[in-house]
Amino acid sequence: MFSSFVCIPRAISFQSITSHSSSKSEKAQRIDHHFRKIHRSVNMESLQNRYLFAEIFMRESEYAERNPNARLIKLGIGDTTEPIPDIITSAMAEQALALSIAQGYKGYGPEQGNRELKRAIAETFYKDMQVKENEIFVSDGAQCDISRVQMLLDSSLSIAVQDPTFPAYIDSSVIVGRGGTFKAESGKYKKIVYMKCGAENNFFPNLSTTPRTDLIFFCSPNNPTGSAASRQQLKQLVEFAKENGSIIIYDAAYAAYISDESPRSIFEIPGAKEVAIEISSFSKFAGFTGVRLGWTVVPEELLYANGYPIIKDYDRIVCTCFNGASNIVQAGGLACLSPQGFQALKRTMRNYMENAKILVDTFESLGLKVYGGKNGPYVWVHFPGLSSWQVFNQILERAAIVTVPGIGFGPGGEGYIRLSAFGHRDSVLEASRRLRMLL
Amino acid sequence: MFSSFVCIPRAISFQSITSHSSSKSEKAQRIDHHFRKIHRSVNMESLQNRYLFAEIFMRESEYAERNPNARLIKLGIGDTTEPIPDIITSAMAEQALALSIAQGYKGYGPEQGNRELKRAIAETFYKDMQVKENEIFVSDGAQCDISRVQMLLDSSLSIAVQDPTFPAYIDSSVIVGRGGTFKAESGKYKKIVYMKCGAENNFFPNLSTTPRTDLIFFCSPNNPTGSAASRQQLKQLVEFAKENGSIIIYDAAYAAYISDESPRSIFEIPGAKEVAIEISSFSKFAGFTGVRLGWTVVPEELLYANGYPIIKDYDRIVCTCFNGASNIVQAGGLACLSPQGFQALKRTMRNYMENAKILVDTFESLGLKVYGGKNGPYVWVHFPGLSSWQVFNQILERAAIVTVPGIGFGPGGEGYIRLSAFGHRDSVLEASRRLRMLL
Repeated sequence: MFSSFVCIPRAISFQSITSHSSSKSEKAQRIDHHFRKIHRSVNMESLQNRYLFAEIFMRESEYAERNPNARLIKLGIGDTTEPIPDIITSAMAEQALALSIAQGYKGYGPEQGNRELKRAIAETFYKDMQVKENEIFVSDGAQCDISRVQMLLDSSLSIAVQDPTFPAYIDSSVIVGRGGTFKAESGKYKKIVYMKCGAENNFFPNLSTTPRTDLIFFCSPNNPTGSAASRQQLKQLVEFAKENGSIIIYDAAYAAYISDESPRSIFEIPGAKEVAIEISSFSKFAGFTGVRLGWTVVPEELLYANGYPIIKDYDRIVCTCFNGASNIVQAGGLACLSPQGFQALKRTMRNYMENAKILVDTFESLGLKVYGGKNGPYVWVHFPGLSSWQVFNQILERAAIVTVPGIGFGPGGEGYIRLSAFGHRDSVLEASRRLRMLL
Repeated sequence: MFSSFVCIPRAISFQSITSHSSSKSEKAQRIDHHFRKIHRSVNMESLQNRYLFAEIFMRESEYAERNPNARLIKLGIGDTTEPIPDIITSAMAEQALALSIAQGYKGYGPEQGNRELKRAIAETFYKDMQVKENEIFVSDGAQCDISRVQMLLDSSLSIAVQDPTFPAYIDSSVIVGRGGTFKAESGKYKKIVYMKCGAENNFFPNLSTTPRTDLIFFCSPNNPTGSAASRQQLKQLVEFAKENGSIIIYDAAYAAYISDESPRSIFEIPGAKEVAIEISSFSKFAGFTGVRLGWTVVPEELLYANGYPIIKDYDRIVCTCFNGASNIVQAGGLACLSPQGFQALKRTMRNYMENAKILVDTFESLGLKVYGGKNGPYVWVHFPGLSSWQVFNQILERAAIVTVPGIGFGPGGEGYIRLSAFGHRDSVLEASRRLRMLL
């Protein structure tokens, strides 16, 4: 979701802007006068410039420059590192090569995704949940689908998010005009409801005090806390949405990592199809972060106030603003969901979750409160009395480990840091050694 | 850009909607009462349901059902049909397989695209135009980039489009709220300026009578007319944009097909970097319609009225609403731009353009006025006195050839049909035979 590179255009010379205008000086002046008339969108204007992972990258680079011999361990960005099982990459290679022969060539596919892949997604992830193939929209990833869902829904709708949570829900909401002004004191956008999800409430919002909003973004297992909502909690959430006439936009990108009885889909909850859209991804369970594949389920039962099916509008968005995921990548997705592919991926996931356990044990042995790492590949560590940037800096400076300061996920993340379990085992073990020495 | 499949959800049973609510009837009633509160966005509401290629597909399917033995020739949707040169698919296969080994695995890449690919795009398409690598944003295709540019810019901005033109400019503008109400009598959205580009004005708008708008969508070579704007015309367009303080959103998806001296990029025009964004694609020149790869150039010189660089906001959009094109596909893009790859693609393009010539000759020999087919792979045929749907129907019913009625590209397309030259040679020759017999 986050590259280590952010384009920062060089300073623009204002002189260069007018250098091409007409040689007739009168006309040139007239042109210069009218030259730039397009105002910046208020939404982009209110979007905070502080781009979390760019800031982290800057600090990391500065550190590396000052310490050229340090062996930096990156447990910051949640980026997969283990190779993709051969059965999956072979399927993609085969599909690529098939495009070179007359009988194998394929042009545009359905914008909504290939039928076999949609069927495999329905069978693998939505068994007994009455999710139909035509309700599944295959895409190039969850982050992209979040913004397509944003385009779908009226910009005047109000939203609630977990606090802390993945920043793209808020940022894309601000981009389409649902944020309001940013308040530096609170670290919050005025029009957004932040549902505190901390250790004190078992990482689930207190719905009895949560104001009604039109939309509720909900990520489970949560990024960054790694905690998955229980069946009972999700039942409450669905009932809350029904009572309020809200739509839940449920992000299940980490669902495959759930190890206990927590639901892996909102559609495990009876009645959820009337109130929820689910977004999911191959990125984290199949190592497809750079390959790009995801999907979104928009149930037929989900209707606007006037009774019009939302799926019809989403289909239109997908056909107008998107053009289908790559056919090569979709072939890989299908191989991921074959019995052999899925078994191989489970081994990789187990490996990451063992990393998580190593990190959890490390911090617990140091007497710190640690969350996550059981149903999701993130470890969420509390450092009482310290700011999360302070902790980030100390761990970087003294152990050469890159983490993510919790505040980057919302004000509710202050005092915490997130570690990704997606690293290689030797890095995680080395990180554990350094942390034990440091703390 | 258009699949042959459009999801039309089955009729929704309104009874089923309430079937999951609580067993306590009082509570159930309360929930039902509040159940659906989300209003449909006014923008989606004003979007016309008539989805051109869905309508075509329906008529085509009906015909096929009535005539099970007919050999249908599809020259409708502009979908590539020739295999991709082996050097390109091999590069993708290799990249896919590399993801299975520890040293070859890659996760998230830069959202803006891989550096080598951006450099190759700059060198191949923007030589001597001062387009820098960091101004190029690699994507999953032009249609997707159009909607990202729509998200970038304030929804209150006014727009102009060529008439006729590719429908996605208008549809995506309506989705973000720039359309206003649709007028059935005129076939136009109230707030959109339609710049008539017909044979009578050499397919270039009369700018002296064109009202000022904030944004100008301009596609050259144009889809559907196949005509490319000349250098002189594009100079006028750039000057017009400067005088009005407008931004040109220039779609160059078919630029590689230009065979004369017409510019292949808006940035060939001095000063264009201050007023234009260019969107382009691998779809049509590399047969990547199903593989998915494109790019957008946002120049550093392009500024908002307040002097803020638009590239900074676009970078933010790309980082927030997109996550980079597939690494496998980007490897293919790089191979397309290798000397050997590009030579091979030129052969395929020549083949398509020979198809175009066959179609042009066919219609001309029948005494019809034919446009396009020289700088773009579309042939645009005038049938005076007939509606384009009438012509579409006759050619379908009597020659079993699928075309596209010109009116689907805007009211200015009435009386015309578009034929795609992207078919196989034998189909095109057979179509030519049938048309000569029919007309």
